[in-house]
Formats: sequence, structure tokens, C-alpha cells
Amino acid sequence: MQRALSAHRTIEGRSNFPEWYQAVVREADMAEPSPVRGSMIIKPWGYGVWEQIQKELDRRIKETGHENCYFPLFIPLSFIAKEAQHVEGFAKEMAVVTHHRLKLIDGKLQPDPEAKLEEPLIVRPTSETIIGDAFSRWIKSHRDLPLLINQWANVVRWEMRTRLFLRTAEFLWQEGHTAHADAPDAMAETLRMLEVYRDFAETTLAMPVIAGEKSENERFPGAVNTYSIEAMMQDGKALQAGTSHYLGTHFAEAQNIRFQNEAGEHTWCHTTSWGVSTRLIGGVIMTHGDDDGLRLPPAIAPKQIVVVPMLRNKPEDSDVLGYCEALAQALRRQTAFNESIRVQLDTKDIKSADKRWNWVRRGAPLIVEIGPRDMANQQVTYMRRDKLRDGDKVRSMSMPRDQFVGEAAQLLTEIQVRLFSEAKTRLDSNVRSDVGDFGALTEYFGAGGDEDEASEFRGWVRAPWSKPSGAALDAVEQRLKQLKLSIRNAPLNQSESAMGKCIFTGEPAVQEVLISRAY
Amino acid sequence: MQRALSAHRTIEGRSNFPEWYQAVVREADMAEPSPVRGSMIIKPWGYGVWEQIQKELDRRIKETGHENCYFPLFIPLSFIAKEAQHVEGFAKEMAVVTHHRLKLIDGKLQPDPEAKLEEPLIVRPTSETIIGDAFSRWIKSHRDLPLLINQWANVVRWEMRTRLFLRTAEFLWQEGHTAHADAPDAMAETLRMLEVYRDFAETTLAMPVIAGEKSENERFPGAVNTYSIEAMMQDGKALQAGTSHYLGTHFAEAQNIRFQNEAGEHTWCHTTSWGVSTRLIGGVIMTHGDDDGLRLPPAIAPKQIVVVPMLRNKPEDSDVLGYCEALAQALRRQTAFNESIRVQLDTKDIKSADKRWNWVRRGAPLIVEIGPRDMANQQVTYMRRDKLRDGDKVRSMSMPRDQFVGEAAQLLTEIQVRLFSEAKTRLDSNVRSDVGDFGALTEYFGAGGDEDEASEFRGWVRAPWSKPSGAALDAVEQRLKQLKLSIRNAPLNQSESAMGKCIFTGEPAVQEVLISRAY
Repeated sequence: MQRALSAHRTIEGRSNFPEWYQAVVREADMAEPSPVRGSMIIKPWGYGVWEQIQKELDRRIKETGHENCYFPLFIPLSFIAKEAQHVEGFAKEMAVVTHHRLKLIDGKLQPDPEAKLEEPLIVRPTSETIIGDAFSRWIKSHRDLPLLINQWANVVRWEMRTRLFLRTAEFLWQEGHTAHADAPDAMAETLRMLEVYRDFAETTLAMPVIAGEKSENERFPGAVNTYSIEAMMQDGKALQAGTSHYLGTHFAEAQNIRFQNEAGEHTWCHTTSWGVSTRLIGGVIMTHGDDDGLRLPPAIAPKQIVVVPMLRNKPEDSDVLGYCEALAQALRRQTAFNESIRVQLDTKDIKSADKRWNWVRRGAPLIVEIGPRDMANQQVTYMRRDKLRDGDKVRSMSMPRDQFVGEAAQLLTEIQVRLFSEAKTRLDSNVRSDVGDFGALTEYFGAGGDEDEASEFRGWVRAPWSKPSGAALDAVEQRLKQLKLSIRNAPLNQSESAMGKCIFTGEPAVQEVLISRAY
Repeated sequence: MQRALSAHRTIEGRSNFPEWYQAVVREADMAEPSPVRGSMIIKPWGYGVWEQIQKELDRRIKETGHENCYFPLFIPLSFIAKEAQHVEGFAKEMAVVTHHRLKLIDGKLQPDPEAKLEEPLIVRPTSETIIGDAFSRWIKSHRDLPLLINQWANVVRWEMRTRLFLRTAEFLWQEGHTAHADAPDAMAETLRMLEVYRDFAETTLAMPVIAGEKSENERFPGAVNTYSIEAMMQDGKALQAGTSHYLGTHFAEAQNIRFQNEAGEHTWCHTTSWGVSTRLIGGVIMTHGDDDGLRLPPAIAPKQIVVVPMLRNKPEDSDVLGYCEALAQALRRQTAFNESIRVQLDTKDIKSADKRWNWVRRGAPLIVEIGPRDMANQQVTYMRRDKLRDGDKVRSMSMPRDQFVGEAAQLLTEIQVRLFSEAKTRLDSNVRSDVGDFGALTEYFGAGGDEDEASEFRGWVRAPWSKPSGAALDAVEQRLKQLKLSIRNAPLNQSESAMGKCIFTGEPAVQEVLISRAY
């Protein structure tokens, strides 16, 4: 009766992680590829997770003083062309609209040559340029600053190799854009939003992350500093889960975003931008999923408790159903994570055992199964998705009905905490600081050329770094690339102790960086 | 001190409505034109209204059993080509993506000829085709039906003449898409969602509407029946505020959406679609605005009560501010429309009088002004935006502070009801049923060729209709078009009495239809 997922995370000790990931996305009914190259269809259960993410993150974005707006999907080509580094970074992967009408020509529907746009339009890959243009009109005086804007939107970046949620041509995200009177204020904003992301990832997604600064070569095109939060997936790879950029006056100068300061002088604004996307859902899957499918942190589960009536086409079915309905209602009156508990009563016309495994694969935190005996005893039988099995056996528990209703919120909180602590232990115990030089690094990670080697669990290395720049940095990154490695970030929390020498340059280290394979 | 809006609805009895509308959108800070032809920027106050609309409508859509998904922005050209009427209806106004990369050629950034797509992609004008394709994979058995899906998304229809919120190339909307086992079930869904829209418009937007069926020529491309809700704007014109379509098996046949029924036979699904958009915001403005600006129904006001401290750079300022903060907190603990009251404390560094008029123009339902005297007397001074003036004079009222806190929710409800009833009276008293023939219709509305005549308030005519079709219907619509008129819909609630003869064909009428000028 135990329907396992069609692929497991490991096979004979070797990682089968990519197949496992695809199986979870498919069998948890989260998303599917669309007939449009590189785009995905986000299905109700996957979109439900996104709605929970949006709700909680939107609350935090508003609490820190930002207001939501909506800017156009299309960006005139000339806007993109204004900021040189920005062009370099994005021009290679954008969807370009060139016509505004179709026409039947020789029996074939095609772009109407007479409806060619004078200036092509770009489908936004990000909105710094179009929002900056508005800022240049909206900001006149220091009284207009800081200007704190956010938008929830779809963006498009043409990607050659796509993977559901992790890398798709179109994805959903929020992008914050702010303008400030000076560098310190803009930098404070950049770090404030990084901290919002860190806390959100850990508290709401139960996904531990390390916040830090990206290297010069990994900056957002046009940024002065780029910060990220990096999470460790169950295959040891890093997932960049959110970024926050201090843009200096680059975009302000390209787009004429100026203000009159208190002394009456006109001066450039300092701007920031920051975003997280539906990629977070991929992170949640790869952080919490197990060989039975997805496990969702209760804070973002579209349904936190699923009640499955065990119906058998017998006369007592209607009583069982009534008992379940009353139970669902009672649970909905309870509060968890500051909201009414989200309860689903699953009355679909399929076998109870199939229902159980549907919800196991989807990762519903608490699955309650009610049969005539539970009703007679005024009890509930339930499974916790975070500890589903005892060895190979599914662990089913019972509790008096009223006690369960009373403790449901507490149970959900426990599951949330347990998922976080499990992932936190994995992260904390898999960052090695004892790799002394580049040879040891190579030996530890393996050459990476062989697919087998690349797929063994390695985790991350934390190593002393002399912060080279320019050609010296390029050289380091080339060497890392050959090992399929990259520098993830320089953590904000640096060690107190002496750092020794950079494992790449041999020069005195000024900080430590994280090195790993990554998505 | 009374800062009026820069344009009024009428000038010397003649309508100045278009200029007034633009002034409200601008001065209430709702939206602005963008540098991208036909697209708009929705500013925080306008987007805040959209967020309230989304929240409440989303609740109703979910309550009726629908789940949210997200489908791709891009639709392959071949999908659009499948349904002939659909092509005809949309092919003329779509944004076409033809390239996926830019390149610097001769110093100019342009679409890279080597990155031309094999098949052009259409930016969705609506999603029947791409969602239908998914339905054809998802639906196998009668157990999968009904399938009830909704998405919140941006869509693009190339428009030549645009007006903020009312008609823009890109707009935001929700689109519901459902599949059913048979026609009666699909028709029930079509009418259920029409009723959701009607009730939402009247209850939440305080915008009275008439629900009915569109004429054959006004159907959605590919629909069997199209229903709409029509609202009367303050210039007497109609605004189509939402539509619901029964699509028969047209899309199912074009896209192979089939299921196995209980008898084991494979048969076509019957599908529906329905949507409302940011156009609703235009409807709210033109229904409730007055010569001082916008008036927002409290149910959708981003801020329902604004507290303005009257600060004068004096020592008592901090006490006044403290009094205001405590008041705002007390008000937030009150519940209106099933949620905490949304309160803004306006501490911006501008003159109090400017603040007052900012909030008047933005249409905040209750504006509270607190000075030292109010504090000393433990009272509040406030204005109701729904009855701002007594003649020319602004009506400012006072109430003991605790009484105001206790009655705030009731006041908001009163304002909501009053705005609806004012608009309802206007609608009810401006639908004429005494226009006996086409000559009288022409005389009543005027030829419409003269801009002056077209702008006088005329309201709607309700007239007997023989429901001609084909060429006969075309002829009627041509005659109406010359008068700048159109048939809005055949109301669901028809008169009980005998109808007499159709005012167009002279044949016995089978129903009554609404005729008017429209947006």
C-alpha cells in the first residue's frame, strides 16, 4: 500500500537528484512544462504555494515602507541601450516584439509586414530602466526621498537550458526599486531588504541561508554591490535564492534621476533593486522533499491539514462525512501563523489510499484519516508529513478529537520548526573550513568533469579570500569553472579569527568566501 | 483654501467629462501614461485599489470552487490559428515576438537576425488557446469534471486609441476558464460567474449594473453566448464592466478537449471563460468621482480613514502627533467589511491644508484633522468624502474621540451604502422605456456626429427587440453606429408586460435590449 515516488534522491549511494526533483514537481502536481519553449504552467498546488509566499513577503515589504505599483511589460529598446553594463548583461537573452498585428498571407497567419514597430519593444527581463524613467519624473526634491516601490510581475529571460521553477524563460517575481538621497541610505536599504529575505527564507520557508556579498564578476549588470542569500540543497549544491543590489548612481546618471537637496543643489539619486522569484519554490522542494515526495513547511502549505474520510459505500458513510465536516470546521476556527488554519476536506471520488498518497506526495503537513472507528471513539488518526515513516512503515497516530483540535496549531508550529532545524543541521555540518589550498579544493570536489563525481554530495567550502579583482579574479573564476565550482558569496558574518592566506592567490586573506557547485 | 480639481464634469451645462476623467486619474495619483505607446503606469494609490479588488474578487472566485494557476505569457502562433473565429477576432491587435536576442550591429542595438524564432510567439490577448491545450492533457474522465481554473495575469491587445484604465494595450485582469461534461452545467457556470460579477460590482464597488446577454455580433470571438454587466457612467454612457462566455464545444473541438463519460464514450467538453480587468477602476472613477476628485467606496479604498495631524512647528506638535497615533491604533482595532480598518497617519512634511486636498482628491472615505483643540477636548474633527460640501462650503464635523472610534465602522458602511444608492438612483432614473421607434431614438440621442450633441447626458434606452440575426442584425448595428450607439445587452430581468414591436424591424419583439453610447 505504500506508493513511493517514481524516483529517489539517491540510487546505491549516488545522487539521482535531478530525476528525483522532476518526479517531485510532477507527482506533487506543482507544475509542468508548457508547449511554449522554456515556459512552465504552474498548477494549482504550486501556485497555491506561490500565493502563500506572496502574501507573507508582501506583508514584510509593506511593513518596511514600500508601496506596490505596476509598470509596463514592454520596454523600449532605447531604454535598455542607455546603461552600458546593463545592455551587456541582458541583451543576449531577451524576447523582442517587432510587430503589432498578424495577417493571413498566402493562407498562412504571420506577422503583418505593414505592422512592423518603428522601435522594437523588449519584454522586461527586469525593470530598472522603465522604473528609473518614472523616477526621473517623480523625484524633484529631497522631500520625495526615499522613494520606495515594489512590483509583483512576470519577467522573461531567454534561457537555453530550463528546469521547472529553477530556470525558466518566463518567471514570476517581485522587484523592489528604491531611490535615496545618499549612498549610506541606499546601502542601508540594500542590506535591510537582504535581511528581510534572509528572515523570510528561514522563518517562512524553513530554508536556512547564508547572506553575503557576491564577487565583482557576479554582480547584477550595472550594480556597485550585489548581495545574495544562498541555500544548501539536499545534493549539497547552492541555490541563489534572492538578491539585493546597491546600484550607486549608475542608473540615476543613465536616466537622469536627480533631486534638489536641502542646500538647493541638484544631485544624483542613489538607487537599489532587489528581488525573489518562483525559484524559491524550487528551493523549498530541494530543501524539504524526501523519497515520498514534497514536504511543505506549514507556513506556506496551501492546505495545512487535509481530512480524508474513509468512505466505503456503506450506510455509515454519511455519518463519517458529517464527523469530518465538523472536524474541519473546528480546525478552521483555530489560528496558526496568525491566520485561520487552512483545512481541506477531501471528498473526491477516489480510493482513500490514493488520497493518502496524493497528499503525502504533495507534502500536506498533517494528513488526517477518519473511519467509523475514529468516529465511534471520538478520535482522529493522523500522520505528520515531517516524520512520515518509522523505518519503512508509515507512522499513523491517534489522539482524542478535541485534543487534536486544541493542539493542531502547536503541531503545525512543531513541524515548521523541525523542518527548519533538519535543514539547518545539514547546512551547518556541511560547510568545510579545513581546505587549505587549491589542490585540496580540487581533490575534495573532484574534477567535476565526470558526471558521477559531480553528483556526489560535497556541500560547501568556506575559504580565505584575498578579494582579487579584474584579470586576477577572472583567472580564479576560470579555474573554479573547470571544476564546475563558483564563489557563492562572502558571508556578512565573517569569522573573528585570523584568516591566513587566500587559497587561490596565496596573498593575505581579507575575508572568507563560500565555494560550491550551484544551480 | 478650497483646491478644486483642474477640470469639472460639466462646463455651463455641457459635459466636460473626458477632461474631468483625465484630471481625476492624474490628480488622485492613480496612474499615468508610460513612454511605451498605449501602456500605463499604475501608481501606488491606483494599484492599492486594484489590490483590494483582487482580494475580494479572489475570495469569491475561490468560494465558488475555482483554483488559481499560472499559464505562459507567450502563445505559439499555431495555437491562435486553430480556432477560426478566435483568429478573426484577435489577430488584428496582437504583440508578436519574433526574436530572442539583441545584437550590436553597426553600433546600433537591434534584433539579432540569427536569433529569429522559427515560430513567432504571441503575447497573450487572452488565454483560451493555451489553457485549452493544457485541459486537453488534464481531462480524461468525467471524474475530472468540472475543471475550474482562474488566473490573475497581464494581457496585451494592441489598441490605437487608449485611455488610462479604460482601454490600454496592456492591462491586468483575471480570466476564469472551466470545462464541463455538458451544456447545462457549462451554462450554469457562465451565469454563476456573471452573478458573482454583478454582486461584486454592486456590493464591493458600489457600482450598480445591469446583467444581460450580448447580441450575436458582440460575442467574444468563438463564443456561443456572451453575457455582460453594464454600468452607467455619470455622462450617461455605458461601461461594459465584465463578461462571461459560454463557449460550447468550439474550443474543445479545436483543441481536442475530450472526456470519457460514465457510459465509456469519448465526448467533447463544454467550456466557459469569464473576466474582469483594471477597467473596473475606470468604472469606479466615472461612477463615484465628483468635482473635487475621486470618491472611493470604503470597501476598496486602500486607506479608509486618513488622520492628518495639524502640526505648526510648535512645542505641542509632539502631543498632537501622539494623540493621532493612539487614535490611528484604536481605529485599526475596529473591523469594517470583515477586516481591520485601514488607517493612514499622514505625517508627510507638507502643509496640513495640502494634505487635506490630497486626500480629498484621492477619495479617502473619512478624513480626520486633529489640532491642539481637538486634543484638549478629546474629540475628532472629520470630513465624510461622500458629502464633502454644504453648498460651496466644506462640511467639517466633530465628535467625541471614543464615540468616533466606536462608530467608525458604521460610518464607513454608511458611506458605502450611500455611494451605491446615489449611483443606483441615477441608473434607475435614466433608462427610458418610452422611445417608440427608430425616429424617436434618433431624435432622443441626436445624430451624434456633432461632438456637442454626443456629450449631452442621455442615459440609456430600453426598447423592444425582435432579435434579428445575420444580415438583418448587421443592418441594425450599422444604423446604430451612425448615431454612435450600440446595443449593450438584453437584460436577464425582462419586463413581464407585453413588448410590442421591435423599434428596428417592426416585427414582434421577443425581448428588450438596452441601447446607449458606450466606452
